[in-house]
Amino acid sequence: MREANAAFADEERVLADPDTLAAADSYVANIENMIGTVKVPLGIIGPLRVNGLNAHGDFFVPLATTEAALVASYGRGAEIVTRAGGASVAMLAEGVLRSPGYKFAGLVEAGLFIDWVVRSSDALKSAAEATTQHGKLFSIEPMMDNEVVFLLCRFTTGDASGQNMVTIATEALCRHIEAHCPVKPLHWFIEANFSGDKKSTYLGLMTGRGRKVTASVTIPRMVVEQGLHTSVERMLAYAQMANLGAMLSGQLGAQGHYANGLAAFYIATGQDAACVSESAIGFTRMESRGEDLFVSATLPNILVGSVGGGTGLPSQAAGLRLLGLKGNGKAAALAEVAAAVCLCGEVSIIGALTASEFTRAHHKFARRR
Amino acid sequence: MREANAAFADEERVLADPDTLAAADSYVANIENMIGTVKVPLGIIGPLRVNGLNAHGDFFVPLATTEAALVASYGRGAEIVTRAGGASVAMLAEGVLRSPGYKFAGLVEAGLFIDWVVRSSDALKSAAEATTQHGKLFSIEPMMDNEVVFLLCRFTTGDASGQNMVTIATEALCRHIEAHCPVKPLHWFIEANFSGDKKSTYLGLMTGRGRKVTASVTIPRMVVEQGLHTSVERMLAYAQMANLGAMLSGQLGAQGHYANGLAAFYIATGQDAACVSESAIGFTRMESRGEDLFVSATLPNILVGSVGGGTGLPSQAAGLRLLGLKGNGKAAALAEVAAAVCLCGEVSIIGALTASEFTRAHHKFARRR
Amino acid sequence: MREANAAFADEERVLADPDTLAAADSYVANIENMIGTVKVPLGIIGPLRVNGLNAHGDFFVPLATTEAALVASYGRGAEIVTRAGGASVAMLAEGVLRSPGYKFAGLVEAGLFIDWVVRSSDALKSAAEATTQHGKLFSIEPMMDNEVVFLLCRFTTGDASGQNMVTIATEALCRHIEAHCPVKPLHWFIEANFSGDKKSTYLGLMTGRGRKVTASVTIPRMVVEQGLHTSVERMLAYAQMANLGAMLSGQLGAQGHYANGLAAFYIATGQDAACVSESAIGFTRMESRGEDLFVSATLPNILVGSVGGGTGLPSQAAGLRLLGLKGNGKAAALAEVAAAVCLCGEVSIIGALTASEFTRAHHKFARRR
Amino acid sequence: MREANAAFADEERVLADPDTLAAADSYVANIENMIGTVKVPLGIIGPLRVNGLNAHGDFFVPLATTEAALVASYGRGAEIVTRAGGASVAMLAEGVLRSPGYKFAGLVEAGLFIDWVVRSSDALKSAAEATTQHGKLFSIEPMMDNEVVFLLCRFTTGDASGQNMVTIATEALCRHIEAHCPVKPLHWFIEANFSGDKKSTYLGLMTGRGRKVTASVTIPRMVVEQGLHTSVERMLAYAQMANLGAMLSGQLGAQGHYANGLAAFYIATGQDAACVSESAIGFTRMESRGEDLFVSATLPNILVGSVGGGTGLPSQAAGLRLLGLKGNGKAAALAEVAAAVCLCGEVSIIGALTASEFTRAHHKFARRR
Repeated sequence: MREANAAFADEERVLADPDTLAAADSYVANIENMIGTVKVPLGIIGPLRVNGLNAHGDFFVPLATTEAALVASYGRGAEIVTRAGGASVAMLAEGVLRSPGYKFAGLVEAGLFIDWVVRSSDALKSAAEATTQHGKLFSIEPMMDNEVVFLLCRFTTGDASGQNMVTIATEALCRHIEAHCPVKPLHWFIEANFSGDKKSTYLGLMTGRGRKVTASVTIPRMVVEQGLHTSVERMLAYAQMANLGAMLSGQLGAQGHYANGLAAFYIATGQDAACVSESAIGFTRMESRGEDLFVSATLPNILVGSVGGGTGLPSQAAGLRLLGLKGNGKAAALAEVAAAVCLCGEVSIIGALTASEFTRAHHKFARRR
Repeated sequence: MREANAAFADEERVLADPDTLAAADSYVANIENMIGTVKVPLGIIGPLRVNGLNAHGDFFVPLATTEAALVASYGRGAEIVTRAGGASVAMLAEGVLRSPGYKFAGLVEAGLFIDWVVRSSDALKSAAEATTQHGKLFSIEPMMDNEVVFLLCRFTTGDASGQNMVTIATEALCRHIEAHCPVKPLHWFIEANFSGDKKSTYLGLMTGRGRKVTASVTIPRMVVEQGLHTSVERMLAYAQMANLGAMLSGQLGAQGHYANGLAAFYIATGQDAACVSESAIGFTRMESRGEDLFVSATLPNILVGSVGGGTGLPSQAAGLRLLGLKGNGKAAALAEVAAAVCLCGEVSIIGALTASEFTRAHHKFARRR
Repeated sequence: MREANAAFADEERVLADPDTLAAADSYVANIENMIGTVKVPLGIIGPLRVNGLNAHGDFFVPLATTEAALVASYGRGAEIVTRAGGASVAMLAEGVLRSPGYKFAGLVEAGLFIDWVVRSSDALKSAAEATTQHGKLFSIEPMMDNEVVFLLCRFTTGDASGQNMVTIATEALCRHIEAHCPVKPLHWFIEANFSGDKKSTYLGLMTGRGRKVTASVTIPRMVVEQGLHTSVERMLAYAQMANLGAMLSGQLGAQGHYANGLAAFYIATGQDAACVSESAIGFTRMESRGEDLFVSATLPNILVGSVGGGTGLPSQAAGLRLLGLKGNGKAAALAEVAAAVCLCGEVSIIGALTASEFTRAHHKFARRR
Repeated sequence: MREANAAFADEERVLADPDTLAAADSYVANIENMIGTVKVPLGIIGPLRVNGLNAHGDFFVPLATTEAALVASYGRGAEIVTRAGGASVAMLAEGVLRSPGYKFAGLVEAGLFIDWVVRSSDALKSAAEATTQHGKLFSIEPMMDNEVVFLLCRFTTGDASGQNMVTIATEALCRHIEAHCPVKPLHWFIEANFSGDKKSTYLGLMTGRGRKVTASVTIPRMVVEQGLHTSVERMLAYAQMANLGAMLSGQLGAQGHYANGLAAFYIATGQDAACVSESAIGFTRMESRGEDLFVSATLPNILVGSVGGGTGLPSQAAGLRLLGLKGNGKAAALAEVAAAVCLCGEVSIIGALTASEFTRAHHKFARRR
């Protein structure tokens, strides 16, 4: 332990700069045993034109990463998408899940329990929603495997990403069941690993978790050729092969590298970087539209908030302010920008792969390791 | 654009502190269009005892996150695991993949191509390895779907996580094919979306991508009861139900929240946070061992390096030095510590879920949003 | 072609026995270009006691197969389950899906289309149900990926398995849309490969397709030991390992060999054997219940009918009459018996695998090949 | 039980025709408790031209089914494919798996065990192959999850489908381990549910199980238009949407209805109909080739034999003789014809779906139920 303490002392100067220490109480709600901060380099791309249901305008998007070429690549994508008129984006659905699980003595009790839950849904909704100003429980879907019952509780969460909110609300729901339901389980747990929280699942891919957003753009042939130094046909040929590769490798969905953009965007804007695990799935499609190239990116599981979580920390708040998307009423727009950013990344990487610039980009921006 | 520029000016002070600006050339190889840094709060857990093939001793582990309760929860897990004698850990395999894809006029050409590749494997290996001091190409597995052929190229990457290294080496391999192979494709791409790069795939789950590591601990009954305020039986009951929940929701693998620990660990140590998308899959198992509780966590896709990437940036390097795992010869140990951290997280969260402390922890550490 | 014609002549005597030829018009609604019949050997197991919501009593179950040991193994399972008091079974849900797909010029049109569909659901339901006496359309779930919209149409189908019924009803629904919806697609198809028809999918695993049935039994320790020559502990140890094997191999669900029982049952009772592809998924669980062994089998996708399809052919009708489950009002019971049969098969094979009798059974019943 | 016995008596006449009873000893190796046979109507399609590595010529293919329209639809596909010059087919790989599982006291023992297995592979191969004239063990792949080790044993099986053969050979392998390996497991099982036997798994999709076969055809535009009453463009538009539907529904692979053709082919030729569960996965692709339509079907898991199993029963043998593929040296050709049949089915159904003939076909051939 002495060695460790020595290391601790040695590194403190690097990690705990005076500004951060002065602002230490900004951080106290977000971390325990804090010894400083990690400085993740922040680049900026844009202007990225977004024509969304919720996000409109030209955005400068902060991206925090240590991966060379990432910001340059996404920036190039943003330039192309903007030259093509911008990304058309829509948030299609929202809903954060929790999934308490109940085990009964047998099938009959499980059936009676589901019956009681269905009949008591108003009371359960009230119990859950009493814990939160912004969360709304909009469905309880029972899922039964013999004597085990999962209750998929699906909430909207206002402008927060809402993972804590739904946990607290679901506990209240479970306590209500415990107090009032005459059918008693052998045991139950507030979360029984059905919700897809921080995991990539087919449930999330199909029904969405968080905010489901789709973004698309039709890029004129000339922009493909001059801006990406490739051709519409090459990009379509790539899409065809990459789609097959995705399926043959057992990928959840089929896309290129949503994770790069999402991780950088989440870190830059105070989102939960762990949610990249569930958010980075979806479908990128490329098709011809006459002479031009249509590209869409649909992400069913974007988990972002414009309030709460890490959004209030100094540099993260600055990231959100750069976007003009900090505070109440901005979460849907934030999700739309996130999807637009992923769209830009797909355009750029597939452009690079088909122009054989992929490795050259890495050569240029990254020192070889 | 004027507004954006104004915002840029407004936020610069927050993002670009003098220390960082002074060190700006440290960052130049890692990012483009840099406007500052995002300060991610860094907590520390430990000592965590790791009995690994590569990592031995008591580690203080830095975790960077904005999620309240995460560091406290993982810290509690580390305490329990250490009281139980530490985590037994082994890196079982390693290999980073790239998957160039080739399309031919027909089935016959595709067959001839595979035949040529198999016969030319020594030359292809030489071509690939000529680009790197540390990377080794240890297998080329052809995968055929009629006239399309994917070449799964699997490399070891020394102490780097190796994503760039294998890209560059694979391009050399492809150039060698282009120059020498008499069977000409209609088109080909250096990466055809079969490799699982930054994606969760069944391929990765089965064969591994990056480093495959397994960690386990047998926790004495008394430690479970006193340290986690639950019981061995409750934790086993949870594991049974959670396993079913994982399968019913179509989860890739079955685990609780590897993503939380991995994201925090990756950010703190200069790894690529986007890789959380592929790393956060695997299997957590709980079983009784006599009176006690056996827990294992097996992660087939840990992508970490002790050199390269973001590991040389000031605060990230400090994180690695805290662990004593910066520089050459440390990557395998780093992967083992990552898996041990995930094991701690599983122990702690399942302890909390079964002690009904899950939401209380959130109440205590996080302000409700 | 001369050779083929000769072969045709040579084999006619074997395939087209006089009885079948005499009854040829029984077959005319079920096949084209008929040249005879394949005689699949039919064994019988039972009595199998089933305590179901719909099926009650002791059943003799016909199983048609050419696989040695199959009937003996399922028969042994039936004996064990019956000695343990019978299988508790419940049909939990039903619904056969069709999924027409629509492609629009863009996102906006797709959104307007969904809006129209939701508002027109009563009329769509009427249009669909006008084509059938027994089918009911109970939900239309739109699923959107940018400008593409799938409509998951979920029907109950009375006592038929219903694959044709829902196709015809869905076509009427689509024609109604074509005639009345002001939002015009670029193109549409009556089935766009989302429904899981004759395919194993996660959608089917989660939401069910056909009839979802669960069956379970608690087998007294003594019956396990005397009847299966193994132990409760061995069977639990197997279940634990097999569950891991299922997940590691990327199995849809986790079970042993539902396909064996289902294929034999489907052929024997005039069901569509091709549906084994989608039906043979689900979850087998084994747990201790005090000293005894609890086993459950849950199959979300059983596709059976007691009317229609092949159920009216002479020998298939005889199979259904053996069960006492031919004709109106019997489909739910038929599905419950199918699940009970699968439960028997799981009990028997896991018994054999843990008693090391697996290969001996094959030795005894099958000539080695 | 009296009722059941009565039923038994009542149905015997239908099920047990005199011819079958006279030949009852033909069946004794294939079934137990035989009470007769189920007569599955048998149709025939063809001539289907197959240009395979192993199957050459024009084949008349028997298909046994009770589903109206199936034979007509596959027959139409065969006509189109043959007019287009026939199906190009190749068997790409073969291998039937068994997966014994071993559980050890801990990680170290598991590692030592794998080490011993790798060093003893020649002896293990000899032990396994001593049980069979035709089976060859060509790889043993250890798969480790902490203290649990699965051994994926991959065999070629000559002209048999080989499921029993590999079971017996694997048992010998396991007995050799038991006798000679100094590292003793806590317990082991000859099959631990990793092999994909009778289950659809991602392992099978990727690495194949049984015989992996690919079939393709390029259909001239005029044949599409005149023979299928649709257009190349409509079929491509369908393929694009159906591919998305497959992925969104979590399908294993992406295809239309392989199960229909495979089930009918398996029953007609004495194969194991239960294997439809694993065989009916794969990839159908459609692309333009100039003005024409390229279609491929790749099935990684075809399980067929030209000897053994049900291939020797009277009517099943007749089915094989119709094909000219009964007996030694014919299994590879049989697998190629199976894939060609699936290709025909895909061409026909997608033709029908895009010509809006899908439901009309059902109307015409099937009585509505």
